[in-house]
Amino acid sequence: MLILNMKELLIQYNAIRQHTENICMPLAREDYVVQPVMDVSPPKWHLGHSTWFFETFVLKPHFTAYTEFDSQYNFVFNSYYETIGARVIRTDRGNLSRPSVDDIYSYRQHVNDAMRTLLAGPLTKELTGIITLGLHHEQQHQELLYTDIKYILGHNPLFPAYSTTSVYQEPVVVNTRFLTIPAGIYEIGHQGKDFCFDNEQGRHKVYLGEYKIADQLVTNGEYLAFVKAGAYQDFRYWHAEGWDWVKKNDISGPLYWHLVGGRRMCYTYAGLQELDLSAPVCHISYYEAAAYAAWKGLRLPTEAEWEIASQQFKWGARWEWTNSAYLPYPGFTKAPGAVGEYNGKFMVNQMVLRGASVMTPEGHSRHTYRNFFHPQHQWQFTGIRLAE
Amino acid sequence: MLILNMKELLIQYNAIRQHTENICMPLAREDYVVQPVMDVSPPKWHLGHSTWFFETFVLKPHFTAYTEFDSQYNFVFNSYYETIGARVIRTDRGNLSRPSVDDIYSYRQHVNDAMRTLLAGPLTKELTGIITLGLHHEQQHQELLYTDIKYILGHNPLFPAYSTTSVYQEPVVVNTRFLTIPAGIYEIGHQGKDFCFDNEQGRHKVYLGEYKIADQLVTNGEYLAFVKAGAYQDFRYWHAEGWDWVKKNDISGPLYWHLVGGRRMCYTYAGLQELDLSAPVCHISYYEAAAYAAWKGLRLPTEAEWEIASQQFKWGARWEWTNSAYLPYPGFTKAPGAVGEYNGKFMVNQMVLRGASVMTPEGHSRHTYRNFFHPQHQWQFTGIRLAE
Amino acid sequence: MLILNMKELLIQYNAIRQHTENICMPLAREDYVVQPVMDVSPPKWHLGHSTWFFETFVLKPHFTAYTEFDSQYNFVFNSYYETIGARVIRTDRGNLSRPSVDDIYSYRQHVNDAMRTLLAGPLTKELTGIITLGLHHEQQHQELLYTDIKYILGHNPLFPAYSTTSVYQEPVVVNTRFLTIPAGIYEIGHQGKDFCFDNEQGRHKVYLGEYKIADQLVTNGEYLAFVKAGAYQDFRYWHAEGWDWVKKNDISGPLYWHLVGGRRMCYTYAGLQELDLSAPVCHISYYEAAAYAAWKGLRLPTEAEWEIASQQFKWGARWEWTNSAYLPYPGFTKAPGAVGEYNGKFMVNQMVLRGASVMTPEGHSRHTYRNFFHPQHQWQFTGIRLAE
Amino acid sequence: MLILNMKELLIQYNAIRQHTENICMPLAREDYVVQPVMDVSPPKWHLGHSTWFFETFVLKPHFTAYTEFDSQYNFVFNSYYETIGARVIRTDRGNLSRPSVDDIYSYRQHVNDAMRTLLAGPLTKELTGIITLGLHHEQQHQELLYTDIKYILGHNPLFPAYSTTSVYQEPVVVNTRFLTIPAGIYEIGHQGKDFCFDNEQGRHKVYLGEYKIADQLVTNGEYLAFVKAGAYQDFRYWHAEGWDWVKKNDISGPLYWHLVGGRRMCYTYAGLQELDLSAPVCHISYYEAAAYAAWKGLRLPTEAEWEIASQQFKWGARWEWTNSAYLPYPGFTKAPGAVGEYNGKFMVNQMVLRGASVMTPEGHSRHTYRNFFHPQHQWQFTGIRLAE
Repeated sequence: MLILNMKELLIQYNAIRQHTENICMPLAREDYVVQPVMDVSPPKWHLGHSTWFFETFVLKPHFTAYTEFDSQYNFVFNSYYETIGARVIRTDRGNLSRPSVDDIYSYRQHVNDAMRTLLAGPLTKELTGIITLGLHHEQQHQELLYTDIKYILGHNPLFPAYSTTSVYQEPVVVNTRFLTIPAGIYEIGHQGKDFCFDNEQGRHKVYLGEYKIADQLVTNGEYLAFVKAGAYQDFRYWHAEGWDWVKKNDISGPLYWHLVGGRRMCYTYAGLQELDLSAPVCHISYYEAAAYAAWKGLRLPTEAEWEIASQQFKWGARWEWTNSAYLPYPGFTKAPGAVGEYNGKFMVNQMVLRGASVMTPEGHSRHTYRNFFHPQHQWQFTGIRLAE
Repeated sequence: MLILNMKELLIQYNAIRQHTENICMPLAREDYVVQPVMDVSPPKWHLGHSTWFFETFVLKPHFTAYTEFDSQYNFVFNSYYETIGARVIRTDRGNLSRPSVDDIYSYRQHVNDAMRTLLAGPLTKELTGIITLGLHHEQQHQELLYTDIKYILGHNPLFPAYSTTSVYQEPVVVNTRFLTIPAGIYEIGHQGKDFCFDNEQGRHKVYLGEYKIADQLVTNGEYLAFVKAGAYQDFRYWHAEGWDWVKKNDISGPLYWHLVGGRRMCYTYAGLQELDLSAPVCHISYYEAAAYAAWKGLRLPTEAEWEIASQQFKWGARWEWTNSAYLPYPGFTKAPGAVGEYNGKFMVNQMVLRGASVMTPEGHSRHTYRNFFHPQHQWQFTGIRLAE
Repeated sequence: MLILNMKELLIQYNAIRQHTENICMPLAREDYVVQPVMDVSPPKWHLGHSTWFFETFVLKPHFTAYTEFDSQYNFVFNSYYETIGARVIRTDRGNLSRPSVDDIYSYRQHVNDAMRTLLAGPLTKELTGIITLGLHHEQQHQELLYTDIKYILGHNPLFPAYSTTSVYQEPVVVNTRFLTIPAGIYEIGHQGKDFCFDNEQGRHKVYLGEYKIADQLVTNGEYLAFVKAGAYQDFRYWHAEGWDWVKKNDISGPLYWHLVGGRRMCYTYAGLQELDLSAPVCHISYYEAAAYAAWKGLRLPTEAEWEIASQQFKWGARWEWTNSAYLPYPGFTKAPGAVGEYNGKFMVNQMVLRGASVMTPEGHSRHTYRNFFHPQHQWQFTGIRLAE
Repeated sequence: MLILNMKELLIQYNAIRQHTENICMPLAREDYVVQPVMDVSPPKWHLGHSTWFFETFVLKPHFTAYTEFDSQYNFVFNSYYETIGARVIRTDRGNLSRPSVDDIYSYRQHVNDAMRTLLAGPLTKELTGIITLGLHHEQQHQELLYTDIKYILGHNPLFPAYSTTSVYQEPVVVNTRFLTIPAGIYEIGHQGKDFCFDNEQGRHKVYLGEYKIADQLVTNGEYLAFVKAGAYQDFRYWHAEGWDWVKKNDISGPLYWHLVGGRRMCYTYAGLQELDLSAPVCHISYYEAAAYAAWKGLRLPTEAEWEIASQQFKWGARWEWTNSAYLPYPGFTKAPGAVGEYNGKFMVNQMVLRGASVMTPEGHSRHTYRNFFHPQHQWQFTGIRLAE
């Protein structure tokens, strides 16, 4: 998403803010409220939090005519920004019936009105930067909205559908080949003037030995063979902590897979469906991705290997687990103030994912984008690309 | 509630079922959904569960023309009745956005329609008994609805009011006196043909020594003196497990008490209000009630003492903690089948409360009524009557 | 144990203190140290704690010539006496390798020397009372020593024997009959000048309806029939919290029962042995005792029923679970000071056991003795007597 | 440790096995048994486990004349080797009083006798390799023995000394300078024929940008300034998970630091001592190391930076936290069988430490050695070297 001028920024603002609300359109009021597990936020919290970002970082410090909507909302919709004030413990978000969904839509309207006034006038480069960050932040929450909605509906015993029409187009995987990338010094990290997050900055040289990498993703059918081979009962393929996770949580396959009367089913946005064997496997943890690779006698690529090779293959259907831990690039520094908490504080105990997923908003993906999750997380649209 | 004939049973059915819905009238849709702690159920669950009772124990076995509303609801709205099927773990109720509130009101309508047809015809005595039990069961959930709604709104940082009009009338406590009851053999337990729960049955003799018992409840003002005397920092007044509970949970007073800018406030159905010092103290655990009594050099009455003396004082504002553990009366036996799980299985680790509270539905209290909660629970309208 | 004069008190002191050490004689040094679960204390802690009692309540306040052995020991060997100082959290006792066992035996010697000097002179009645309490306290810990040692060795994968010679004589149960006790007013509670604990005091009238009670205990063979009938898989016999306990802890029978190659074995002080079907069942929780009674269509006696009937049957092999919660007798008051914490603070959430067990020290049992444990505890020598 | 011939292997075997026992010489019998926290093993377990390694991987498969000491020991002394059999849950090791310490010394003698017989004859290269691995494994446990003993004694309220004579010599840090290392392609990883662990193998090229690295470690005095500056109360310096760790565990400084009557004290092998301000800071977690670096406006080195620069500075006093996650080197593969579980399965959620510590056995350190711990661990002799 490259912003060319102020007029375009306003167009982008309107489009992105509207898209968030469109995602929520099919929801029942009740679906906005619940938080089945700590890592899933209630949809109404996403609606409020992405609005709070603009109110807190743009309007309150930079738009003197702005009147705060409700001073309590800072407490409710703050996430992890310790600089701004006491946060609501994540696990408590699902306990809050108020503000109501209507209140939050009014809040969005109130902030949108002020933002549109602000965007009509001249803006400093710094402010343009913060607004652009806010839009990318909202796009991140759009993807989380989709995944959290899927989790909420997919863990309800009634298995309600989100939508009767197709939400996205699944790729078909055929004839996977391994590309060979020669050894050498390469450069990774963001370059150019387009927007990127702070964790992508600091383009730098890396040395890579020769490697091979698959041009397509592992499919449901291939992963099913791994399941049927008894891999969830064989510790040899797993990290020690992965094996503990499997046993403690009785994991026997990807999230949303169900065996119903002998048939392999899968919860989708359209409800329970027959498992599509030629589609890329989805909703697997890093532990599962690494175990699958070990079972194949192969491995996951590093994030540098992925970034270099990704010029030569199609990607964008799954966030792809790499074997790189989420760590700062050389020269990484946090921005001062609350925005500086954006990424750096999470750089421990998480693994990097590269690519994008079918749920990623248009214009919100790059070869250099670094996503990251804890190794046990399954609820994102994650997948596996093998390397050798 | 004495049922005189079938016509009156229908009138009672309509009135009680309607009252449940009236209690929910002031709620926002979102308020129906959340479950802040394990012991609080979402209002929509109460609406569904009290309906499920009639569907499961009356309509399905006894009304052949009945068509089940949705076979999944048994799984969702069952509570603790192991005989009927797998229950939803209590702590998970707040994760279920579906069935929606509208669906549940449709479910109520569907069951009400069938019940009214059934109630228009002749009924066996057994069936009348089960329907009567269902109505008392629903009244129990009406009180829980009130207390759970208070918990949900009173633990929201916005402290929203439930109602702008007064929900109940609080008694004023003045000139508390101690009544003296002579030693002797007394009889306790239910007698007569009116409805009572199984745990009240088995009227039996008990021997009581002479005792004194207060004719009124301990007030907020009296309890505040206990707080100010540092009793929450002095283990001497507490049971060992009560003291652990105080320290582990940082308890410093009754639930809903807040110190705001030096003023003693209290969350009520009308929002935060100044603490009313002459009203009976409310929302205290058994541990607190017992510690208060110890601090006064007095004690709590036993349930038998309470039942005998209650002919001579006014009660009904608070459920009153007794010093009796919840145990079976002589000759207690469980009814066969699922209804037999009603009370007996809870007869361990709980304390008996006697009386009724300002939130108890009219006609749902008796001198012999035995309520029971775990000793750490504060969320009910509990109070203290002293004995000596 | 009736103390007739000072000389006899010294004899009792010497005998009881020696017996504690005799119990530990067969232990390896390592056995003194471990604490496998929170409710089991390391033997060396029992040795120190029972000594600390005399140092703290007798020597330091009443014997001016006494020199404290080590001021840190108060911190280490205190148990639950909040008045005396910060206690070591029970669960931490197994983390302390020091004081060493040798140090603790030196501590015992040091305190014994001082006590013997003190006991040679005249004593006030109050001091005699405290010393007598200390001896009964030590006898309580002798029984705990036996049960904790059994737990430590019986949960070791090597199943080491405690002793090659017989530790106690097991009764044989044959021809169990039910005694009928007529209705009437009875008196229970301690009377006379002999020692008793504060929780037995306050002899008082109770009214009992007619009841029947078994003259002998339930046997291993009878209990095995309950196990084989699938009772651990059938919620109907259990309290709700008992059923949760069974499922959460995978309970399938009494503690120390093992199925080894199809044979029913039982860990004893002599190691693994064939289960003795005619001996009284042992090491069962209240939940199990109550479920067994429910399965038989019978019930457990109340403590008053037990006390009255116990004049007519033999007892003393098992602590017998009653269906009475542990609550104060009428007129119960705590003694002032730390000794007042002895019993009253535990009067919630526990059930009363009556009788005594094969491990109870001689002279340490009475018809009025009230033992108490939480309903899930199996590690004591508990048993079942049925009532009707 | 380079093994030149069989005779030298026997000498090494004897020396290393003896050294393990020497470390335990000052212990009281009770110190061998306890396990205060999950990550600390009882000394007697280390004695048995390092012996079990030789029995399981050398004697049983390769020495036909060998008679197993006790078949139960495999169950007790196995650690994480899933291939070999059910492991004892780490947290349970402190519950096992048996085998006794004497039994374990007999076990050591039994295995040593067999090993010496075996080492007198000719050995295959493979077997020499496994024995060498066993000796390095034992050296790892020697260091753990020291750290676990320190933890056990240093968490006892009596603060007993391990030794009255000096256990090691602490370096004095003065005039720390930053070395500049030019950008370029470097090689890291083990080369040559000497022993190394599998995780060091696969020498490979890395590209490093220019960097600066301190020639000495951060001192207690420097770290004290960080503490006094209030860094433990300021979230800005911490990873989000580090900040949660600080708050949840009330961390206020390095392990073993105590403020006693206003004086800064530190538990050492000689008991509580005045904090030595010029010695390197010790017993800090990765979170603390990273926060300290952030507070200084600097950073921790990566493991590649450390390995290259370590030719130019002295090291060996502290295991030094790097900012590298523990991941496989290019081409890493697990060995087949149980020995293959040695390292690879731990390559997630841990950080690499480089160097060695004052407690590392002689001959057990290399420039390429990769140690690893979870980021919250403080109990090792960890330290901080800054980079820029």
